[in-house]
Amino acid sequence: MKPVVAADVDPRTKPSNYPEPFASRMRGRVKRQLGDVFGLTNFGVNLTTLDAGAVSALQHRHSLQDEFVFVLEGEVTLIMGDVVETLGPGSCIGFPAGGASHHLENRGTDPAVYLEVGDRTEGDAVSYPADDLQAAKGAKGWVFTHKDGTPY
Amino acid sequence: MKPVVAADVDPRTKPSNYPEPFASRMRGRVKRQLGDVFGLTNFGVNLTTLDAGAVSALQHRHSLQDEFVFVLEGEVTLIMGDVVETLGPGSCIGFPAGGASHHLENRGTDPAVYLEVGDRTEGDAVSYPADDLQAAKGAKGWVFTHKDGTPY
Repeated sequence: MKPVVAADVDPRTKPSNYPEPFASRMRGRVKRQLGDVFGLTNFGVNLTTLDAGAVSALQHRHSLQDEFVFVLEGEVTLIMGDVVETLGPGSCIGFPAGGASHHLENRGTDPAVYLEVGDRTEGDAVSYPADDLQAAKGAKGWVFTHKDGTPY
Repeated sequence: MKPVVAADVDPRTKPSNYPEPFASRMRGRVKRQLGDVFGLTNFGVNLTTLDAGAVSALQHRHSLQDEFVFVLEGEVTLIMGDVVETLGPGSCIGFPAGGASHHLENRGTDPAVYLEVGDRTEGDAVSYPADDLQAAKGAKGWVFTHKDGTPY
């Protein structure tokens, strides 16, 4: 177990876990799974790059898992309820479980880079207020369905 | 809930949770508890500054909790088993639960700044191979004792 230069870690091979048509909306988003490099299991840490125009995720909220974002380079715009605020390097935001739905957008012209942390609490469910999608964390990973429970 | 500039967050009022004589050895270490700003409970995120000569912690390992460090400014030297390696900005290291004991030292002349993440799994125990100290996470927080179980 040795330290690594985060930017040298290979990007995640599967760009998005979402089913289509949502996965394609994550174009321009690249995640490097830093926590996995070291075998961490209680939480994940990603070094995520958003190209100009890319988004962090669909607007969403977790029922049980906390999330945290720390901006390293460039700027991202947070959209969360009534909050629309641009964060630069050194700014951070936390998303406690059960809080307001949120996502980030790169509305600039340069890439943005941030660290994102999320724990792996079992039984988590994710709701997506703007999309016909819901997710539940099962023993085999995330299961995505339509809001009426039918599979994608 | 709004984003914050991490460096503007007030430092933790209690510099160290260790009993003496160990607390004094943490002189020059300042922690800003970013996760707490947003009410996160599943994990903590600190922005930690080590002045020249300061250390991150006593040499230690957790039984159940994972840890992760990402260097933002300056350099820190990781001491972990046979590994003695200096990390600069953009480098990271993860410490899975039950892994090798470790700590960081600022052996340079300038302050070093890093993000540290740790989860809050109940029942965690911390061992300190180089010191007459052990810690267990109870309902009221960390309890520190001598290695023979007598209190400090």
